Amino acid sequence: MPIITLTTDFGTKDHFVGAVKGAIYKELKEVKVVDISHQISPFSITEAAYILKNAYQNFPEGSIHIVGVDSEISLENKPIALQLEGQYFICCDNGILSMITKDINPEKIVEITIQNSSENSFQILDTFVKVACHIARGGMLEVIGKKINNIKKLFEIQPQINADKNQIVGSVIYIDNFGNVISNITQNVFIQIGKGRDFEIISRNYKFTKIYNKYNDIVDFKEPKEKRQDDGKRLAIFNSANFLEIAMYRSNLKTVGGASSLLGLKYRDNITVRFIKRDETRKT
Amino acid sequence: MPIITLTTDFGTKDHFVGAVKGAIYKELKEVKVVDISHQISPFSITEAAYILKNAYQNFPEGSIHIVGVDSEISLENKPIALQLEGQYFICCDNGILSMITKDINPEKIVEITIQNSSENSFQILDTFVKVACHIARGGMLEVIGKKINNIKKLFEIQPQINADKNQIVGSVIYIDNFGNVISNITQNVFIQIGKGRDFEIISRNYKFTKIYNKYNDIVDFKEPKEKRQDDGKRLAIFNSANFLEIAMYRSNLKTVGGASSLLGLKYRDNITVRFIKRDETRKT
Amino acid sequence: MPIITLTTDFGTKDHFVGAVKGAIYKELKEVKVVDISHQISPFSITEAAYILKNAYQNFPEGSIHIVGVDSEISLENKPIALQLEGQYFICCDNGILSMITKDINPEKIVEITIQNSSENSFQILDTFVKVACHIARGGMLEVIGKKINNIKKLFEIQPQINADKNQIVGSVIYIDNFGNVISNITQNVFIQIGKGRDFEIISRNYKFTKIYNKYNDIVDFKEPKEKRQDDGKRLAIFNSANFLEIAMYRSNLKTVGGASSLLGLKYRDNITVRFIKRDETRKT
Repeated sequence: MPIITLTTDFGTKDHFVGAVKGAIYKELKEVKVVDISHQISPFSITEAAYILKNAYQNFPEGSIHIVGVDSEISLENKPIALQLEGQYFICCDNGILSMITKDINPEKIVEITIQNSSENSFQILDTFVKVACHIARGGMLEVIGKKINNIKKLFEIQPQINADKNQIVGSVIYIDNFGNVISNITQNVFIQIGKGRDFEIISRNYKFTKIYNKYNDIVDFKEPKEKRQDDGKRLAIFNSANFLEIAMYRSNLKTVGGASSLLGLKYRDNITVRFIKRDETRKT
Repeated sequence: MPIITLTTDFGTKDHFVGAVKGAIYKELKEVKVVDISHQISPFSITEAAYILKNAYQNFPEGSIHIVGVDSEISLENKPIALQLEGQYFICCDNGILSMITKDINPEKIVEITIQNSSENSFQILDTFVKVACHIARGGMLEVIGKKINNIKKLFEIQPQINADKNQIVGSVIYIDNFGNVISNITQNVFIQIGKGRDFEIISRNYKFTKIYNKYNDIVDFKEPKEKRQDDGKRLAIFNSANFLEIAMYRSNLKTVGGASSLLGLKYRDNITVRFIKRDETRKT
Repeated sequence: MPIITLTTDFGTKDHFVGAVKGAIYKELKEVKVVDISHQISPFSITEAAYILKNAYQNFPEGSIHIVGVDSEISLENKPIALQLEGQYFICCDNGILSMITKDINPEKIVEITIQNSSENSFQILDTFVKVACHIARGGMLEVIGKKINNIKKLFEIQPQINADKNQIVGSVIYIDNFGNVISNITQNVFIQIGKGRDFEIISRNYKFTKIYNKYNDIVDFKEPKEKRQDDGKRLAIFNSANFLEIAMYRSNLKTVGGASSLLGLKYRDNITVRFIKRDETRKT
């Protein structure tokens, strides 16, 4: 029996998550329901897109991902099911999947047509659970919907590259549990545009000229421990999801603060990478 | 093997929830433990009652619900187990189940008599886990307790109806993850008393004369999207649990605010429905 | 198939927890993954130690506990796996296990040697998941690491006892969901040093001369309910984990406050027990 995951903005206090799990287990005793996140900011398509993209890749083939963010069905927010790399995604066509489908083509997309017409403000329970259980039982997507070719794109997940190809203007798409600030600039785009050139990363008044691969690469382990003052140092890093991130070493949002609070970086703020001509580098 | 659910005010940081799950799995390897909520406000019987009522209905027959809210056993807070619609509830007799038993008669109630006399401040681990595992194995309630006929009632979950039957005075019993404000007035009571008459709903200085069934029923989809200004509009709605709710369209408590913060509605505030004589309606 | 538990400071919003679960289920379909806590304060070894100690004891033999707190591997933070009472712990050697190994000798400790050398900032996914699945399949610790004899000790979990053996100076190591303040003084140490003598517990300006075993032992059930004013009364108690705790009866941190906020007790504040000579007691 495959896994069904849940990614929602329901929070974990209300009865919604429990209700959805109960409904799934009522239909399918043997399925495994796994929470990805229920703490998405209400209606935040971008957060959901980022979290889902980085979680789903670790799941086994056949996994079914229900996304309950901005999921009230309407004329303009149609329920879809999508198959990609042998996994399944059930959500509304509101852009949530565009971060996943940017680099990988879906194998199949359907617009779900089995939603009941009964008036009810909690349709994920009715429609998405039914679709997930149908897929878990081995059912075909064509049975619960009609094939479509395109889904809505989310533009803010794409950084802008200038005509001279020496600048990437990205923006903050996510702030994590440690206050680290994550941009929409991936390592792939960085390498492709940068071609090994020197660079500077600029965000507000802060500048970075080096990108780390591990947080503790900032530590000089040769120095005696008691002399180091690394906690709270800021750094640029390609995080484990391969996005360019502005971080603070060993930060704590609730006490000393993190990159977001201490550097004043918020959702949608700019993070710019400027590549430097080899000549320029030599001169300086 | 049946499902055992947990509804508590333990929070998810402390070791309590993990400890309870470990103890259950130690007794019964094959059971499925499902979290309903651990974020109930400390000792809040009303919140627990509302959440449990709306979650349990979705679970399969045979499910066992442990409620760890106000669950320190004392002379005045006796542990009970209750069977209703083929599901089981284990909690203290503090009113938590009175929202569920208001409309449905329990099949059986016992006062639990197997609690160990050892002094310990975390009795849910000792007593409730043992009872849940006993039931999960197919054991009879009579083995772990003695039959009783009544449980404690919680009065604040009942709205007041005036003698003329043209007014329902309800109150706020729950505020959800989106800041939506939920009253104790159910759609059933509303229909029964209202008999199709026009009405006005009053809470603080706000008045509503229409009740929606879906949040986005407030949107006029014929208008071009860029001209609409629906976000933050307030509305009255029968929510998916069939309670009258004051909501804000696409609200976010952490940023712009929700119905609770923007309209200043708190737990226990009044929400009144006044039905209008057909004659009055015609006149106005 | 054994249980794999997770204790981390990842929070539940980000994709990290979902990613770890997906990776485990990808390797081992039939394992059960149980959350102990993901709300550990970032990098707090002490909190993790306290929560883990109190949770693990309830789990069945063979359970495998992954601890993702301060878990970025470095020269000074080596990954280890430890077997104790037939359960397994996988974490970095940063002191987290010293609360568990204080009273119980580990059966085996290895320094993990299979971490991949690839640069990546989220090593728990790579290394710890691999080790956990290896153990879950029945693999030997020696296969994934080399035997070591000692692990790092955490000193702040030990209270200080004076030379005259009439005083224990402890400190606050944890504040729970209800705002209760937990010291590092265990009931065992208290009994061993106190030898039945009278005592006073002092913290800031507050003094306690009695220790309860249940929160509601503070209530005088003979008095009529409406005359009692027990809510918010402060008390000293040996909590269910057998640590000396300063609590408030039926407190709520978000509304009226709890022991931590109302008595102004913080992490690392002193809690002192002074034992009184039998002669002194008679005199007073």
